[in-house]
Amino acid sequence: MARWAPDAAGRLQAAALELYADRGFDQTTVADIAALAGVTQRTYFRHFADKREVLFSGQDLLQEFLADWIRSQINPDDPIGTVMNGLAMAVSKFPAKTPLSVKRSAIIAANGELRERELQKLASLAMVISNSLRQAGIDSSKAEAAAEIGTLVFKLGYQRWIGGDSESLEGALRGVFADLKSVIGEDAVTVPVLARRRPKVA
Amino acid sequence: MARWAPDAAGRLQAAALELYADRGFDQTTVADIAALAGVTQRTYFRHFADKREVLFSGQDLLQEFLADWIRSQINPDDPIGTVMNGLAMAVSKFPAKTPLSVKRSAIIAANGELRERELQKLASLAMVISNSLRQAGIDSSKAEAAAEIGTLVFKLGYQRWIGGDSESLEGALRGVFADLKSVIGEDAVTVPVLARRRPKVA
Repeated sequence: MARWAPDAAGRLQAAALELYADRGFDQTTVADIAALAGVTQRTYFRHFADKREVLFSGQDLLQEFLADWIRSQINPDDPIGTVMNGLAMAVSKFPAKTPLSVKRSAIIAANGELRERELQKLASLAMVISNSLRQAGIDSSKAEAAAEIGTLVFKLGYQRWIGGDSESLEGALRGVFADLKSVIGEDAVTVPVLARRRPKVA
Repeated sequence: MARWAPDAAGRLQAAALELYADRGFDQTTVADIAALAGVTQRTYFRHFADKREVLFSGQDLLQEFLADWIRSQINPDDPIGTVMNGLAMAVSKFPAKTPLSVKRSAIIAANGELRERELQKLASLAMVISNSLRQAGIDSSKAEAAAEIGTLVFKLGYQRWIGGDSESLEGALRGVFADLKSVIGEDAVTVPVLARRRPKVA
Protein backbone atom coordinates (compact mmCIF):
# COMPACT_ATOMS: atom_id res chain seq x y z
CA MET A 1 0.00 0.00 0.00
CA ALA A 2 0.94 3.64 0.38
CA ARG A 3 4.38 4.60 -0.85
CA TRP A 4 4.92 1.69 -3.19
CA ALA A 5 1.64 1.96 -5.15
CA PRO A 6 0.28 4.61 -7.53
CA ASP A 7 -3.09 4.93 -5.78
CA ALA A 8 -4.62 7.75 -3.75
CA ALA A 9 -1.99 7.33 -1.05
CA GLY A 10 0.78 7.52 -3.63
CA ARG A 11 -0.73 10.63 -5.21
CA LEU A 12 -1.07 12.23 -1.77
CA GLN A 13 2.58 11.53 -1.04
CA ALA A 14 3.74 13.01 -4.32
CA ALA A 15 1.52 16.06 -3.78
CA ALA A 16 2.79 16.56 -0.23
CA LEU A 17 6.41 16.34 -1.34
CA GLU A 18 5.85 18.84 -4.10
CA LEU A 19 4.12 21.34 -1.81
CA TYR A 20 6.52 20.89 1.11
CA ALA A 21 9.43 21.45 -1.28
CA ASP A 22 7.87 24.47 -3.00
CA ARG A 23 6.11 26.33 -0.18
CA GLY A 24 7.70 24.77 2.89
CA PHE A 25 6.22 22.33 5.39
CA ASP A 26 4.73 24.96 7.69
CA GLN A 27 3.04 26.81 4.84
CA THR A 28 1.27 23.73 3.51
CA THR A 29 -2.08 22.46 4.81
CA VAL A 30 -3.69 19.05 4.47
CA ALA A 31 -6.37 20.77 2.39
CA ASP A 32 -3.70 21.92 -0.09
CA ILE A 33 -2.30 18.41 -0.37
CA ALA A 34 -5.69 16.78 -0.82
CA ALA A 35 -6.66 19.34 -3.47
CA LEU A 36 -3.48 18.80 -5.47
CA ALA A 37 -3.94 15.02 -5.28
CA GLY A 38 -7.58 15.35 -6.32
CA VAL A 39 -9.06 13.75 -3.22
CA THR A 40 -10.92 14.93 -0.13
CA GLN A 41 -9.32 15.70 3.21
CA ARG A 42 -11.20 12.74 4.61
CA THR A 43 -9.36 10.50 2.18
CA TYR A 44 -6.11 12.05 3.33
CA PHE A 45 -6.83 11.19 6.94
CA ARG A 46 -7.89 7.68 6.02
CA HIS A 47 -4.32 7.13 4.82
CA PHE A 48 -2.23 9.35 7.09
CA ALA A 49 -2.74 10.35 10.70
CA ASP A 50 -1.26 13.83 10.32
CA LYS A 51 0.76 16.19 8.17
CA ARG A 52 4.04 14.52 9.02
CA GLU A 53 3.04 10.91 8.54
CA VAL A 54 2.64 11.25 4.76
CA LEU A 55 6.44 11.33 4.49
CA PHE A 56 7.03 8.17 6.51
CA SER A 57 4.73 5.40 5.36
CA GLY A 58 7.65 3.58 3.75
CA GLN A 59 9.02 3.05 7.23
CA ASP A 60 5.83 1.36 8.40
CA LEU A 61 6.10 -1.07 5.50
CA LEU A 62 9.73 -1.71 6.37
CA GLN A 63 8.77 -2.57 9.94
CA GLU A 64 6.11 -5.02 8.85
CA PHE A 65 8.41 -6.62 6.33
CA LEU A 66 11.20 -7.12 8.86
CA ALA A 67 8.89 -8.55 11.50
CA ASP A 68 7.64 -11.14 8.97
CA TRP A 69 11.15 -11.81 7.73
CA ILE A 70 12.53 -12.48 11.19
CA ARG A 71 9.61 -14.73 12.08
CA SER A 72 10.15 -16.90 9.01
CA GLN A 73 13.91 -16.64 8.37
CA ILE A 74 15.52 -16.46 11.80
CA ASN A 75 18.97 -18.00 12.11
CA PRO A 76 19.37 -18.38 15.89
CA ASP A 77 23.17 -18.43 15.57
CA ASP A 78 23.29 -15.22 13.57
CA PRO A 79 20.63 -12.68 14.55
CA ILE A 80 22.46 -9.77 12.92
CA GLY A 81 22.85 -11.80 9.72
CA THR A 82 19.10 -12.42 9.75
CA VAL A 83 18.44 -8.73 10.19
CA MET A 84 20.93 -7.68 7.52
CA ASN A 85 19.52 -10.12 5.00
CA GLY A 86 16.03 -8.89 5.78
CA LEU A 87 17.13 -5.30 5.26
CA ALA A 88 18.81 -6.23 1.98
CA MET A 89 15.64 -7.91 0.78
CA ALA A 90 13.48 -5.00 1.91
CA VAL A 91 15.55 -2.32 0.22
CA SER A 92 15.66 -4.33 -3.01
CA LYS A 93 11.94 -3.45 -3.20
CA PHE A 94 12.44 0.24 -2.53
CA PRO A 95 11.84 2.55 -5.46
CA ALA A 96 14.96 3.88 -7.15
CA LYS A 97 16.39 7.19 -5.98
CA THR A 98 14.55 10.02 -7.70
CA PRO A 99 14.64 13.81 -7.42
CA LEU A 100 11.49 13.41 -5.30
CA SER A 101 13.08 11.05 -2.76
CA VAL A 102 16.11 13.33 -2.53
CA LYS A 103 13.73 16.23 -1.88
CA ARG A 104 11.99 14.22 0.83
CA SER A 105 15.23 13.85 2.77
CA ALA A 106 16.03 17.54 2.38
CA ILE A 107 12.55 18.51 3.61
CA ILE A 108 12.93 16.33 6.70
CA ALA A 109 16.43 17.60 7.42
CA ALA A 110 15.22 21.20 7.30
CA ASN A 111 12.39 20.85 9.81
CA GLY A 112 12.66 20.07 13.52
CA GLU A 113 9.25 18.43 13.80
CA LEU A 114 10.00 16.17 10.86
CA ARG A 115 13.41 15.24 12.21
CA GLU A 116 11.72 14.29 15.47
CA ARG A 117 9.22 12.11 13.67
CA GLU A 118 12.03 10.42 11.77
CA LEU A 119 13.90 9.67 14.98
CA GLN A 120 10.69 8.21 16.42
CA LYS A 121 10.24 5.99 13.40
CA LEU A 122 13.78 4.71 13.77
CA ALA A 123 13.27 4.07 17.49
CA SER A 124 10.13 2.19 16.65
CA LEU A 125 11.93 0.18 13.95
CA ALA A 126 14.53 -0.86 16.54
CA MET A 127 11.77 -1.91 18.91
CA VAL A 128 9.97 -3.98 16.27
CA ILE A 129 13.19 -5.76 15.29
CA SER A 130 14.12 -6.38 18.90
CA ASN A 131 10.69 -7.77 19.80
CA SER A 132 10.65 -9.97 16.71
CA LEU A 133 14.07 -11.39 17.54
CA ARG A 134 13.03 -12.09 21.10
CA GLN A 135 9.87 -13.80 19.94
CA ALA A 136 12.06 -15.90 17.65
CA GLY A 137 13.99 -17.08 20.69
CA ILE A 138 16.99 -14.74 20.72
CA ASP A 139 18.27 -13.76 24.14
CA SER A 140 17.02 -10.34 25.14
CA SER A 141 20.27 -8.37 25.28
CA LYS A 142 21.49 -9.87 22.00
CA ALA A 143 18.16 -9.10 20.40
CA GLU A 144 18.44 -5.49 21.51
CA ALA A 145 22.02 -5.18 20.26
CA ALA A 146 21.21 -6.72 16.86
CA ALA A 147 18.11 -4.55 16.51
CA GLU A 148 20.00 -1.35 17.28
CA ILE A 149 22.81 -2.21 14.91
CA GLY A 150 20.36 -3.09 12.15
CA THR A 151 18.53 0.20 12.67
CA LEU A 152 21.79 2.12 12.64
CA VAL A 153 22.84 0.40 9.42
CA PHE A 154 19.53 1.39 7.83
CA LYS A 155 19.69 5.00 9.08
CA LEU A 156 23.27 5.69 8.05
CA GLY A 157 23.08 3.63 4.88
CA TYR A 158 19.98 5.45 3.71
CA GLN A 159 21.59 8.82 4.47
CA ARG A 160 24.74 7.93 2.56
CA TRP A 161 22.78 6.61 -0.39
CA ILE A 162 20.38 9.53 -0.67
CA GLY A 163 23.13 12.10 -0.17
CA GLY A 164 25.75 10.31 -2.23
CA ASP A 165 26.49 9.36 -5.81
CA SER A 166 25.40 6.28 -7.75
CA GLU A 167 26.02 3.55 -5.18
CA SER A 168 23.03 1.26 -4.58
CA LEU A 169 21.12 1.46 -1.31
CA GLU A 170 22.02 -2.12 -0.49
CA GLY A 171 25.67 -1.33 -1.19
CA ALA A 172 25.45 1.64 1.15
CA LEU A 173 24.01 -0.55 3.93
CA ARG A 174 26.78 -3.05 3.37
CA GLY A 175 29.37 -0.27 3.55
CA VAL A 176 27.99 1.03 6.84
CA PHE A 177 27.94 -2.44 8.31
CA ALA A 178 31.57 -2.95 7.32
CA ASP A 179 32.49 0.40 8.92
CA LEU A 180 30.72 -0.49 12.15
CA LYS A 181 32.42 -3.85 12.21
CA SER A 182 35.84 -2.44 11.55
CA VAL A 183 35.45 0.34 14.12
CA ILE A 184 34.14 -1.97 16.81
CA GLY A 185 36.82 -4.54 16.03
CA GLU A 186 39.61 -2.04 16.69
CA ASP A 187 38.87 -1.77 20.35
CA ALA A 188 41.31 -4.43 21.59
CA VAL A 189 42.43 -2.09 24.38
CA THR A 190 39.08 -0.64 25.34
CA VAL A 191 37.56 -3.21 27.61
CA PRO A 192 40.61 -3.64 29.87
CA VAL A 193 41.02 0.13 30.14
CA LEU A 194 37.38 0.52 31.07
CA ALA A 195 37.67 -2.31 33.56
CA ARG A 196 40.68 -0.74 35.24
CA ARG A 197 39.09 2.63 35.78
CA ARG A 198 36.11 2.27 38.06
CA PRO A 199 35.77 5.01 40.64
CA LYS A 200 32.92 5.99 42.87
CA VAL A 201 29.63 5.47 40.95
CA ALA A 202 27.60 2.92 42.93
CA MET B 1 26.80 23.85 36.09
CA ALA B 2 23.16 22.79 36.29
CA ARG B 3 22.64 19.17 37.15
CA TRP B 4 25.87 18.57 39.00
CA ALA B 5 25.69 21.58 41.36
CA PRO B 6 23.34 22.39 44.23
CA ASP B 7 22.52 25.90 42.97
CA ALA B 8 19.35 27.41 41.54
CA ALA B 9 19.56 25.15 38.49
CA GLY B 10 19.88 22.08 40.69
CA ARG B 11 16.93 23.15 42.83
CA LEU B 12 14.86 23.79 39.71
CA GLN B 13 15.65 20.32 38.41
CA ALA B 14 14.70 18.67 41.68
CA ALA B 15 11.49 20.71 41.82
CA ALA B 16 10.59 19.85 38.22
CA LEU B 17 11.16 16.14 38.81
CA GLU B 18 9.03 16.19 41.92
CA LEU B 19 6.16 18.00 40.20
CA TYR B 20 6.33 16.00 36.97
CA ALA B 21 6.26 12.79 39.00
CA ASP B 22 3.41 13.91 41.27
CA ARG B 23 1.10 15.86 38.94
CA GLY B 24 2.34 14.80 35.54
CA PHE B 25 4.33 16.71 32.97
CA ASP B 26 1.34 18.29 31.23
CA GLN B 27 -0.22 19.48 34.49
CA THR B 28 2.92 21.30 35.65
CA THR B 29 3.82 24.86 34.66
CA VAL B 30 7.15 26.65 34.77
CA ALA B 31 5.56 28.92 37.37
CA ASP B 32 4.91 25.90 39.61
CA ILE B 33 8.50 24.74 39.25
CA ALA B 34 9.98 28.16 39.94
CA ALA B 35 7.74 28.61 42.99
CA LEU B 36 8.73 25.26 44.47
CA ALA B 37 12.42 26.02 43.88
CA GLY B 38 12.02 29.47 45.43
CA VAL B 39 13.12 31.42 42.36
CA THR B 40 11.43 33.56 39.71
CA GLN B 41 10.31 32.32 36.31
CA ARG B 42 12.95 34.57 34.83
CA THR B 43 15.58 32.61 36.69
CA TYR B 44 14.09 29.41 35.31
CA PHE B 45 14.41 30.63 31.76
CA ARG B 46 17.94 31.82 32.36
CA HIS B 47 18.85 28.19 33.00
CA PHE B 48 16.47 26.21 30.78
CA ALA B 49 14.96 27.08 27.41
CA ASP B 50 11.66 25.33 28.03
CA LYS B 51 9.72 22.89 30.19
CA ARG B 52 11.45 19.87 28.72
CA GLU B 53 15.02 21.07 28.87
CA VAL B 54 15.17 20.97 32.68
CA LEU B 55 15.34 17.17 32.45
CA PHE B 56 18.24 17.06 30.01
CA SER B 57 20.99 19.40 31.08
CA GLY B 58 23.17 16.43 32.06
CA GLN B 59 23.31 15.54 28.39
CA ASP B 60 24.65 18.95 27.44
CA LEU B 61 27.45 18.51 29.95
CA LEU B 62 28.17 15.08 28.55
CA GLN B 63 28.49 16.51 25.05
CA GLU B 64 30.91 19.21 26.17
CA PHE B 65 32.94 16.73 28.16
CA LEU B 66 33.27 14.31 25.24
CA ALA B 67 34.22 17.04 22.78
CA ASP B 68 37.03 18.13 25.12
CA TRP B 69 38.06 14.55 25.78
CA ILE B 70 38.34 13.67 22.11
CA ARG B 71 40.29 16.84 21.35
CA SER B 72 42.88 16.09 24.03
CA GLN B 73 42.93 12.28 24.19
CA ILE B 74 42.39 11.08 20.64
CA ASN B 75 44.06 7.82 19.69
CA PRO B 76 43.96 7.91 15.89
CA ASP B 77 44.28 4.12 15.69
CA ASP B 78 41.35 3.52 18.04
CA PRO B 79 38.56 6.07 17.73
CA ILE B 80 36.00 3.86 19.46
CA GLY B 81 38.44 3.24 22.31
CA THR B 82 38.86 6.99 22.69
CA VAL B 83 35.09 7.43 22.80
CA MET B 84 34.54 4.57 25.24
CA ASN B 85 37.23 5.84 27.59
CA GLY B 86 35.70 9.30 27.42
CA LEU B 87 32.28 7.88 28.24
CA ALA B 88 33.72 5.89 31.14
CA MET B 89 35.38 9.01 32.50
CA ALA B 90 32.21 11.08 32.04
CA VAL B 91 29.91 8.63 33.76
CA SER B 92 32.31 8.28 36.68
CA LYS B 93 31.26 11.87 37.44
CA PHE B 94 27.55 11.19 37.18
CA PRO B 95 25.61 11.27 40.42
CA ALA B 96 24.71 7.87 41.85
CA LYS B 97 21.37 6.33 40.93
CA THR B 98 18.70 7.75 43.21
CA PRO B 99 14.92 7.43 43.41
CA LEU B 100 14.87 10.84 41.67
CA SER B 101 16.95 9.73 38.68
CA VAL B 102 14.83 6.60 38.35
CA LYS B 103 11.74 8.83 38.39
CA ARG B 104 13.27 11.03 35.70
CA SER B 105 13.55 8.08 33.32
CA ALA B 106 9.99 6.98 34.06
CA ILE B 107 8.68 10.50 33.43
CA ILE B 108 10.46 10.65 30.07
CA ALA B 109 9.30 7.18 29.06
CA ALA B 110 5.69 8.12 29.80
CA ASN B 111 5.55 11.25 27.64
CA GLY B 112 5.83 11.47 23.85
CA GLU B 113 7.23 15.01 23.81
CA LEU B 114 9.90 14.07 26.33
CA ARG B 115 10.84 10.92 24.45
CA GLU B 116 11.25 13.05 21.32
CA ARG B 117 13.51 15.46 23.16
CA GLU B 118 15.59 12.58 24.45
CA LEU B 119 16.02 11.17 20.95
CA GLN B 120 17.09 14.62 19.78
CA LYS B 121 19.66 14.86 22.53
CA LEU B 122 21.09 11.49 21.54
CA ALA B 123 21.19 12.50 17.87
CA SER B 124 22.99 15.63 18.88
CA LEU B 125 25.44 13.67 21.05
CA ALA B 126 26.27 11.49 18.03
CA MET B 127 26.83 14.59 15.93
CA VAL B 128 29.13 16.20 18.51
CA ILE B 129 31.21 13.02 18.84
CA SER B 130 31.39 12.58 15.09
CA ASN B 131 32.45 16.19 14.48
CA SER B 132 35.04 16.01 17.25
CA LEU B 133 36.54 12.84 15.82
CA ARG B 134 36.70 14.35 12.36
CA GLN B 135 38.36 17.47 13.70
CA ALA B 136 40.86 15.18 15.40
CA GLY B 137 41.75 13.71 12.02
CA ILE B 138 39.59 10.58 11.89
CA ASP B 139 38.23 9.65 8.48
CA SER B 140 34.64 10.78 8.08
CA SER B 141 32.87 7.42 7.77
CA LYS B 142 34.86 5.92 10.64
CA ALA B 143 34.11 8.97 12.76
CA GLU B 144 30.41 8.55 12.07
CA ALA B 145 30.49 4.84 12.87
CA ALA B 146 32.40 5.34 16.12
CA ALA B 147 30.11 8.20 17.13
CA GLU B 148 26.95 6.21 16.53
CA ILE B 149 28.28 3.19 18.39
CA GLY B 150 29.37 5.34 21.32
CA THR B 151 25.96 6.98 21.45
CA LEU B 152 24.23 3.61 21.29
CA VAL B 153 26.42 2.32 24.12
CA PHE B 154 25.46 5.31 26.22
CA LYS B 155 21.74 5.03 25.43
CA LEU B 156 21.38 1.32 26.06
CA GLY B 157 23.84 1.27 28.95
CA TYR B 158 22.00 4.07 30.71
CA GLN B 159 18.66 2.32 30.18
CA ARG B 160 19.98 -0.95 31.55
CA TRP B 161 21.56 0.73 34.53
CA ILE B 162 18.58 2.85 35.48
CA GLY B 163 16.11 0.00 34.95
CA GLY B 164 18.32 -2.70 36.42
CA ASP B 165 19.77 -3.79 39.73
CA SER B 166 23.00 -2.73 41.39
CA GLU B 167 25.44 -2.83 38.47
CA SER B 168 27.45 0.38 37.97
CA LEU B 169 26.69 2.64 35.02
CA GLU B 170 30.18 2.10 33.65
CA GLY B 171 29.70 -1.64 33.97
CA ALA B 172 26.43 -1.38 32.07
CA LEU B 173 28.15 0.55 29.25
CA ARG B 174 30.87 -2.07 29.12
CA GLY B 175 28.25 -4.83 28.96
CA VAL B 176 26.43 -3.16 26.07
CA PHE B 177 29.67 -2.67 24.19
CA ALA B 178 30.52 -6.36 24.64
CA ASP B 179 27.05 -7.33 23.36
CA LEU B 180 27.40 -5.12 20.29
CA LYS B 181 30.81 -6.53 19.60
CA SER B 182 29.69 -10.12 19.96
CA VAL B 183 26.59 -9.61 17.83
CA ILE B 184 28.46 -7.83 15.07
CA GLY B 185 31.26 -10.40 15.18
CA GLU B 186 28.83 -13.24 14.43
CA ASP B 187 28.05 -12.07 10.96
CA ALA B 188 30.66 -14.14 9.07
CA VAL B 189 28.06 -15.01 6.44
CA THR B 190 26.35 -11.67 6.14
CA VAL B 191 28.55 -9.67 3.83
CA PRO B 192 28.87 -12.32 1.09
CA VAL B 193 25.10 -12.98 1.18
CA LEU B 194 24.40 -9.28 0.83
CA ALA B 195 26.92 -9.00 -1.97
CA ARG B 196 25.34 -11.81 -3.94
CA ARG B 197 21.85 -10.38 -3.85
CA ARG B 198 21.76 -7.10 -5.73
CA PRO B 199 18.74 -6.63 -7.94
CA LYS B 200 17.29 -3.58 -9.63
CA VAL B 201 17.82 -0.58 -7.31
CA ALA B 202 19.99 1.90 -9.21
